[in-house]
Amino acid sequence: MGTIQQPWEQIVSQKRAIRDKLLAPYLVDIEHRVPRIDNVDHRSRLENEPEVQIITDLDLASLLKRLETGEFTTRQVIQAYIKRAVVAHQLTNCLTEVLFDEALQQAQNLDAEFSNTEKLKGPLHGIPITLKDQFNVQGVDSTLGYVGRSFQPASEDAVLVQILKDMGAIVIAKTNLCQSIMSSRFPYSGVPVSTSGQEHVPSSIGPMTRDLSSTIYITQTITSSQPWTLDPRCVPLPWNEPIFQKTQSKPLVIGLILNDGIVTPHPPITRTLTELSTALAAQGHELIPWDTSDHAGCIEIMDAFYTVDGGEDIRRDMAVGGEPYLPHVEALVNRGKPISVYEYWQLNKRKQSVQKRYLDKWNKTKSSSGREVDVLLAPAMPHTGIPHRTFKWVGYTKIWNFLDYTALTMPVDRVRREVDAVELGDGGEKYVPRNELDEWNWKLWDVDAVDGYPVNVQIIGRKLEEEKVLGAASVIERVWKEYEEGKYGGKEE
Amino acid sequence: MGTIQQPWEQIVSQKRAIRDKLLAPYLVDIEHRVPRIDNVDHRSRLENEPEVQIITDLDLASLLKRLETGEFTTRQVIQAYIKRAVVAHQLTNCLTEVLFDEALQQAQNLDAEFSNTEKLKGPLHGIPITLKDQFNVQGVDSTLGYVGRSFQPASEDAVLVQILKDMGAIVIAKTNLCQSIMSSRFPYSGVPVSTSGQEHVPSSIGPMTRDLSSTIYITQTITSSQPWTLDPRCVPLPWNEPIFQKTQSKPLVIGLILNDGIVTPHPPITRTLTELSTALAAQGHELIPWDTSDHAGCIEIMDAFYTVDGGEDIRRDMAVGGEPYLPHVEALVNRGKPISVYEYWQLNKRKQSVQKRYLDKWNKTKSSSGREVDVLLAPAMPHTGIPHRTFKWVGYTKIWNFLDYTALTMPVDRVRREVDAVELGDGGEKYVPRNELDEWNWKLWDVDAVDGYPVNVQIIGRKLEEEKVLGAASVIERVWKEYEEGKYGGKEE
Repeated sequence: MGTIQQPWEQIVSQKRAIRDKLLAPYLVDIEHRVPRIDNVDHRSRLENEPEVQIITDLDLASLLKRLETGEFTTRQVIQAYIKRAVVAHQLTNCLTEVLFDEALQQAQNLDAEFSNTEKLKGPLHGIPITLKDQFNVQGVDSTLGYVGRSFQPASEDAVLVQILKDMGAIVIAKTNLCQSIMSSRFPYSGVPVSTSGQEHVPSSIGPMTRDLSSTIYITQTITSSQPWTLDPRCVPLPWNEPIFQKTQSKPLVIGLILNDGIVTPHPPITRTLTELSTALAAQGHELIPWDTSDHAGCIEIMDAFYTVDGGEDIRRDMAVGGEPYLPHVEALVNRGKPISVYEYWQLNKRKQSVQKRYLDKWNKTKSSSGREVDVLLAPAMPHTGIPHRTFKWVGYTKIWNFLDYTALTMPVDRVRREVDAVELGDGGEKYVPRNELDEWNWKLWDVDAVDGYPVNVQIIGRKLEEEKVLGAASVIERVWKEYEEGKYGGKEE
Repeated sequence: MGTIQQPWEQIVSQKRAIRDKLLAPYLVDIEHRVPRIDNVDHRSRLENEPEVQIITDLDLASLLKRLETGEFTTRQVIQAYIKRAVVAHQLTNCLTEVLFDEALQQAQNLDAEFSNTEKLKGPLHGIPITLKDQFNVQGVDSTLGYVGRSFQPASEDAVLVQILKDMGAIVIAKTNLCQSIMSSRFPYSGVPVSTSGQEHVPSSIGPMTRDLSSTIYITQTITSSQPWTLDPRCVPLPWNEPIFQKTQSKPLVIGLILNDGIVTPHPPITRTLTELSTALAAQGHELIPWDTSDHAGCIEIMDAFYTVDGGEDIRRDMAVGGEPYLPHVEALVNRGKPISVYEYWQLNKRKQSVQKRYLDKWNKTKSSSGREVDVLLAPAMPHTGIPHRTFKWVGYTKIWNFLDYTALTMPVDRVRREVDAVELGDGGEKYVPRNELDEWNWKLWDVDAVDGYPVNVQIIGRKLEEEKVLGAASVIERVWKEYEEGKYGGKEE
């Protein structure tokens, strides 16, 4: 990185102009900006039955079957998803790099190849993907949101991108921060976009998909592709199908987190977790309360890591482009002085000892029938969708990054005004917030603003327990669907 | 750690007096210090046939069988090994903590339990072990060689010690320093290290045993004990028997390192590796030369890590006891100024990028039949045994720590004066050392001083490939034994 001589505003407008030019041919008959929307479906105009199936009905495995029988072409699939991405972008400004032209060309090539060989290229043949603007894609910028990283295209694909492309996937765009609108199903929680080279809290990568079965499919596919032969930091641990199956065939022991003791979740989240737990217990699963009294201590150590370099990493990246700081970034960079490498190691020791204690807690906790805890069930956030820039507390997700545990977020229910319209202080007693953050969260509660918004839960396993978490998620999804059908008469569209 | 008020010499003599008092009852009819010895066997007086079998003939699995049939008692086994440990100590001053009395008491308890239940306590019932003075054993000091850590017994067992004890193993002593590197799959929790808290080059734990089959047995046993449920840093990767078997049933592709391009090994090492390679090729295995031109670069990065904290960690430990520095420790501590956490992360990035390139090299290297490399075969040291304090270059082993690869060291042959008495500059040309280290190593070469000493080789696999390395080692051992029998008429005792 050198210092760029142009004013930062000029670089930004160049980047935007290029993007908008690439987008222009795909912007069709869409009214701009409506006041509120909770699902991109409500804004899309899918033109024909195949597009409806591709976007709405089929999961990944079913879509691949239709491609294999020749019922759909790859070009149809990519076109449908480009339409959807354009709508999402108009609502949220989510795309940073637009690769639609290249994607359609690749689709055409795949289709031509398929008509010759009658074989799919790989387990992700023709599947459209977007990548956070952090993954290197050959020939495309990876800005991480820094102006100073503009116009420096990556010289090669990241390992994961290489694996995905080899399997037949097609990159249609790179995205900004993926927040909840486009799918919100698997938030990429706690991925530091900078401070690379640090190894204290490894950032992790996970797929965001349209449904649980697709997440399972892609996790199976990637972990079976021996990624450790390409990335030295990967563990040689192939997908373990017996564990995945076994988890689904026995009564589970589930540690239930309703509250982390720091920020109390909004009523629909507590209500959903409570209903879900009751439904699980009725099916023979054991639910036990999970002690979170150590979470504040974990988060205190984790937060200390954010400023160990005194903000130098961010400051250097900012200096290249000369752009102004956003207020919260400026606050972070100036929060603390750099500590010494020796002090940094002492912080690592504190982290390791807390990780050990958490694992000991997990081992010691037994259900009333004396069995070990399989997974935890918890809120993902203390709120559902909230206005831009009011976002503050990610303690329900980042704790699992800190512990290096496996966590999956999925929507279970939605906000239901008829049952969730609970006032603060309801029941006679006024709610007294525990602390400033808790007060901030309670002030955000507004049932009218979020009626119909998805309510997500998290399912958590220990380190590298993807099979257990995905197996338990499948059980939980089935139990909830059956319960919902009985209680609310099925999912409303 | 506070500051100890006593002079350091006083603490040392107290520690020694306690140790010697515990040793005294076990020092029997041993002549002290002979000028030279290459095998502790030559100094031991095993009194009866069972002791000879226990110490010399039986590997771990066979010994356990005799314990199970009741042919030997645990007490007999522990007594035999205590005798051997005392001889080794008199020759090398290797014991720091003597636990003989406790060990015999535990043996007696195990025997009593066994005579009731007729069942072994676990897969290491009655097996004596010693631990480097780094592992926490409840009630015993872990000094790491620092005076200032004396008289501060550990409050609990390290995770590995706990696992070993639960399996029936008996700790008979703690030792000074043992050179052996094998795995990162072993739990490290509760094992204090110097510069602990650093995560840049994880130090790793491995067993030292009397023979390869015992190393295999103990690795199988420990990795199958689910250590990851006790140590958050362990990977949930159980022993994979099919990989272990498959590695032994096919022609291997072996990358051969004769020289790292920095320090040329002494003649017996090169001769052994060359003979071994020829024998392996004759049995259908493929040997290909392994490129080591990147090793100097790896070691340069690794060495930069040693002083990132400016020696603060060591300096603090030294200050507690007030002891004087050994010259090489003092040199290390004063080698460089501390760097910032930001610079430290940049060093980590360099490390990660070199690790990635090394893995790419491994993937790209193919045998003449087009197959992938299974393992590497290399020197362990550039010399065999050398005099105390002349030890300088560990580049042949530490590179695998840096890369986080799996490495096993095992003796293959011994120095044979009749073939190894090669003068420097032999063959007409005088050897021109490549650098100071290389010159130092050539000056150490003295065939008369080392005749009969063991010649070790290393077998290396990628990250977490213990099954492959141990499988290949078994093949290599068998091939060498057969070859040795034909060429030299078997192992000389």
